[in-house]
Amino acid sequence: MRGYAMSNDDLLRRLRRIEGQTRGIARMIAEDRNCVDILDQISAVDRALDQVALGLLRDHMSHCVTEAVGDNDAIDPQLDEITAAIARLLKS
Amino acid sequence: MRGYAMSNDDLLRRLRRIEGQTRGIARMIAEDRNCVDILDQISAVDRALDQVALGLLRDHMSHCVTEAVGDNDAIDPQLDEITAAIARLLKS
Amino acid sequence: MRGYAMSNDDLLRRLRRIEGQTRGIARMIAEDRNCVDILDQISAVDRALDQVALGLLRDHMSHCVTEAVGDNDAIDPQLDEITAAIARLLKS
Amino acid sequence: MRGYAMSNDDLLRRLRRIEGQTRGIARMIAEDRNCVDILDQISAVDRALDQVALGLLRDHMSHCVTEAVGDNDAIDPQLDEITAAIARLLKS
Repeated sequence: MRGYAMSNDDLLRRLRRIEGQTRGIARMIAEDRNCVDILDQISAVDRALDQVALGLLRDHMSHCVTEAVGDNDAIDPQLDEITAAIARLLKS
Repeated sequence: MRGYAMSNDDLLRRLRRIEGQTRGIARMIAEDRNCVDILDQISAVDRALDQVALGLLRDHMSHCVTEAVGDNDAIDPQLDEITAAIARLLKS
Repeated sequence: MRGYAMSNDDLLRRLRRIEGQTRGIARMIAEDRNCVDILDQISAVDRALDQVALGLLRDHMSHCVTEAVGDNDAIDPQLDEITAAIARLLKS
Repeated sequence: MRGYAMSNDDLLRRLRRIEGQTRGIARMIAEDRNCVDILDQISAVDRALDQVALGLLRDHMSHCVTEAVGDNDAIDPQLDEITAAIARLLKS
């Protein structure tokens, strides 16, 4: 897989990790752990979710092009480049 | 509870809902559901996590002031106002 | 123009307004205006910049498809839908 | 100045730079420059605006505490820590 392209297995593995991180945040709150540490865990989950969104988006753009116009190899590098620019926008 | 202030019970209830939403996203991917609908679910989880972060932040600022200078009723409305401004920054 | 598609003139007009808003923020700081009001102006500029980014992105995706595979009318509604989903991600 | 604390002069200098960057983006659009490069300039302005917001927020929290309860040296390191956590949330 290149760039932001992800298989469904990879997306599902990331989501299981996010589910675990969410349970971890609940545990930190129940144990009255340091607030700033908890906020940083929330930031980490936010970033992990954005990666999943970018993987889905990358895949979806590719499918749209294929459906509309058939074979899409010529456009793949550009879709990677666009997805990377969206990733930087999301972080900014 | 006023403004963004949340009890631990409320935070934990929100996190359980986020955990459920995350499992829902995994299910949507496994069932090859519409990509844009999945992206919107991710946006919803992002927003729900931000609410938890703002609740924690509001509570933490209040604790910091109390620890540093004792009673903090005079500052409560201002902390609410600050938290609301941070909420609008996060959304922008 | 439909959906997020913008002409260069529209983009340039939006950027001139953003430049004016930025000068307005500087004036508010110089005049020691209410901090929360200034933060809200910054949030407004952030949102206005995101609109410009989405307009550029929408246009760029369209060009990429046209360059790679020629005529792209079949894909236009999908690019609009993708751009709208990215807009919701940016806000979340 | 420590952490995210900024003088008004520093804030105004940053805003003048942001104004210049915004004019630069307009020039790039007028010259039909590469879209991804323009998007990255928008991301850079977004980040620069967030720094100004964090500087204002840091200063405002400090003022609020001083007004409500007088001298606030004891709380300064915690306000720095909180502002840094908000910075990481904004980036996530």
